Amino acid sequence: MLMPQLLLEISNHQAEMAETLVQLGRYLIIFVAARLMAELMVRLQLPTILGELVAGVVIGVSGFHLLVPPEAHAELAHWLLSLVGSLAGAPPEAVQEIYTETFPSLAAVSKLGLYALLFLTGLESELDELVAVGVQATTVAVTGVALPFAMGTAGLYFLFHVPLFPAVFAGAAMTATSIGITASVFGELKFLKTREGQTVIGAAVLDDILGIVILAVVVALAGGGAFAIGPILQLVVAAVVFVAAALFLSRKAAPGFDWLLDRLKAPGEVVVASFVVLVLCCFAAQAIGLEAALGAFAAGLILSASKHTDAIQDTVKPLVSLFATIFFVLIGTAMDLSVLNPFEPANRQGLIVAAFLLVVAIAGKVAAGWSYVSKEKTNRLVVGLGMMPRGEVGLIFLGLGTQAEILTPALEAAILLMVIGTTFLAPILLRIVLSGVERDGVEQPA
Amino acid sequence: MLMPQLLLEISNHQAEMAETLVQLGRYLIIFVAARLMAELMVRLQLPTILGELVAGVVIGVSGFHLLVPPEAHAELAHWLLSLVGSLAGAPPEAVQEIYTETFPSLAAVSKLGLYALLFLTGLESELDELVAVGVQATTVAVTGVALPFAMGTAGLYFLFHVPLFPAVFAGAAMTATSIGITASVFGELKFLKTREGQTVIGAAVLDDILGIVILAVVVALAGGGAFAIGPILQLVVAAVVFVAAALFLSRKAAPGFDWLLDRLKAPGEVVVASFVVLVLCCFAAQAIGLEAALGAFAAGLILSASKHTDAIQDTVKPLVSLFATIFFVLIGTAMDLSVLNPFEPANRQGLIVAAFLLVVAIAGKVAAGWSYVSKEKTNRLVVGLGMMPRGEVGLIFLGLGTQAEILTPALEAAILLMVIGTTFLAPILLRIVLSGVERDGVEQPA
Repeated sequence: MLMPQLLLEISNHQAEMAETLVQLGRYLIIFVAARLMAELMVRLQLPTILGELVAGVVIGVSGFHLLVPPEAHAELAHWLLSLVGSLAGAPPEAVQEIYTETFPSLAAVSKLGLYALLFLTGLESELDELVAVGVQATTVAVTGVALPFAMGTAGLYFLFHVPLFPAVFAGAAMTATSIGITASVFGELKFLKTREGQTVIGAAVLDDILGIVILAVVVALAGGGAFAIGPILQLVVAAVVFVAAALFLSRKAAPGFDWLLDRLKAPGEVVVASFVVLVLCCFAAQAIGLEAALGAFAAGLILSASKHTDAIQDTVKPLVSLFATIFFVLIGTAMDLSVLNPFEPANRQGLIVAAFLLVVAIAGKVAAGWSYVSKEKTNRLVVGLGMMPRGEVGLIFLGLGTQAEILTPALEAAILLMVIGTTFLAPILLRIVLSGVERDGVEQPA
Repeated sequence: MLMPQLLLEISNHQAEMAETLVQLGRYLIIFVAARLMAELMVRLQLPTILGELVAGVVIGVSGFHLLVPPEAHAELAHWLLSLVGSLAGAPPEAVQEIYTETFPSLAAVSKLGLYALLFLTGLESELDELVAVGVQATTVAVTGVALPFAMGTAGLYFLFHVPLFPAVFAGAAMTATSIGITASVFGELKFLKTREGQTVIGAAVLDDILGIVILAVVVALAGGGAFAIGPILQLVVAAVVFVAAALFLSRKAAPGFDWLLDRLKAPGEVVVASFVVLVLCCFAAQAIGLEAALGAFAAGLILSASKHTDAIQDTVKPLVSLFATIFFVLIGTAMDLSVLNPFEPANRQGLIVAAFLLVVAIAGKVAAGWSYVSKEKTNRLVVGLGMMPRGEVGLIFLGLGTQAEILTPALEAAILLMVIGTTFLAPILLRIVLSGVERDGVEQPA
């Protein structure tokens, strides 16, 4: 390990003590803040992941500076440095240095959380449900991905002169559909088993797959720096083949996985075997030039056909609760919300962009409700509104873009507002619309 | 982040790709090797943790160089560097640099595993069982800690002229008792509910507490560098007060924890609340100058009285399966077993030390079987042999010493041999002794 100048002036013992205190203190701050906000969100019937992001904003560069990523070039709260310094017998400047030096290990843990979350998303994909509603859901999903993506990207690029990469990425982030919000409203109003409910849920599964393929391609392209047609085609083909292989393997390889699992006798076999599959798929995705996160999702898809999915979910959920929380809090800490201050004239452009994204995000998904052909009378507005909330999937996509350093602070904030806006509005609008048609809905079970 | 010379010569994209591949590849190597060895150990009726350590030795500096800690100053297998390099389009030297630079994040994750393991150990401590066998178990535990500690330390210091710190540490590492091995042999031969069985299990719980207090004091002293009577007393008092406070809080604070848990509604409440308690206790221990690991154990003791212990265990076990595995594999990778080669004359001293430790480790615990007063006829040899296996507890203690860089390679290897020797021998000797007295045993239920 490198030993910067200041650290030479304190003893090894003091440095180790400060390092342990810094790492433990960071966890404390992250989890106390995230839990407080998550509990608040649950009571507001909003996704807890949003609470984690808000917690990050509160403790981060836009808030109390209790946790700031080194890239933000902001200073930590001085009282915090002094506190740890006085406990370890080290000067605050040395604590700051240790903080910066050990930050990558926190980021590495948070990345494990992202992988675990995407793995769980893949694992919970009900591919059978998707097949059941088939054509109708596919039409809704493809339209609901294509419209916001095309309108968002084109609008940002041509109207607001956003450079191509961030514009494409923002467009891609608008493709998400969070099934959590809609499913809970549908469930509450006994609308989940209707044709509309089933269509939305099937379409949301396909949405995730399409969205993550687009994102993997965009992030990989942004890494390369060029936007030529050759690499795009190559990456799209690679991503599609990768996901198709995962879907194929979910039928063929899952039984092999189960066979192996039944033969493992040392404790922890479920979590370790799942983790090995997860890491293997991430490695494979990265090795062929795609995002490792796509591999995590594919690993989940593969194991979604295992007969041990319940056991796998039980062991992966604690990992998600801990490490994905760190991921979202860290994303929040880096967000500079001062770009949203409407009293600053320079910010007005950014706010207009945010409003544009929100309108496109709503219009694109609602329009998808009219995209399919159906002999039966279905409530197309309900389908459209059901596809609207971006929720945690939108935040995962935003997080991927932030980590890949594709977005400007203003665009990050605009995407965040779009996600929050659609997530807040969807359940409210759905309740209004459904309260009128509730009885009809119950009479039309799928 | 610092950017060393070589990394400047490859693009950001290549560096990030290589970094992800290196981190994922390390997990793959660790878990595949650890799982293979753990499965082998289970079939040999040995602790899986031993398999993890052996896996580390096989892939580490004493083996194939697939994973070497930077402190070991050994080179990674060149074919591995070339493989990752060719996938990421980076020269092998750059991959080696990225490997070294990102290693601390793996070490940080492994430390989380150690904390989780000690937390689980504390959580599983059946304090009520300890109270039930009371005086008898206490006598056995204290003797079983004092004898090996005193004999081991004195022997190493006076006979073999080992410096005081490593000698004291090695003595402390000999105090451990692994209940796992004995419990499984007792259980198999229906001897668990006898007075001897209950005494051994109660004594093993107390052993853990005494051993970890001694270790926390020794590690803290080693950090300070001096062996004066003032700091020793201070630390011993701090450690005893800390553990006493944890035992007190297990009666008083656990209900408060349960009350809070029942009020949390956002998902993941059990794992997050437990993790916050864990981190809080680690922070408190470190802040008063003790080992953070003692705090992890204390957190487990506190929550062992919660009505949610089963749920807590379920969420912590996956963390232990993943991250404690990394901890033990890393310990194994750093072990230089060439110091055990008997054909190297310079090594003979080390082998004699190892033999000495093994004899003291056996004699000290067996003697503890004769330390208590009992009106009833009890089989003292069975009690002594039951206390003998060091198993995973001994390896945790060894790991703490290795991390604190207290031990020489030769002494590390000697302690490892002592742990392996007692762990192998105890079940064999117990089976021989118990097969003769089995009937008597069953006639004496507690």
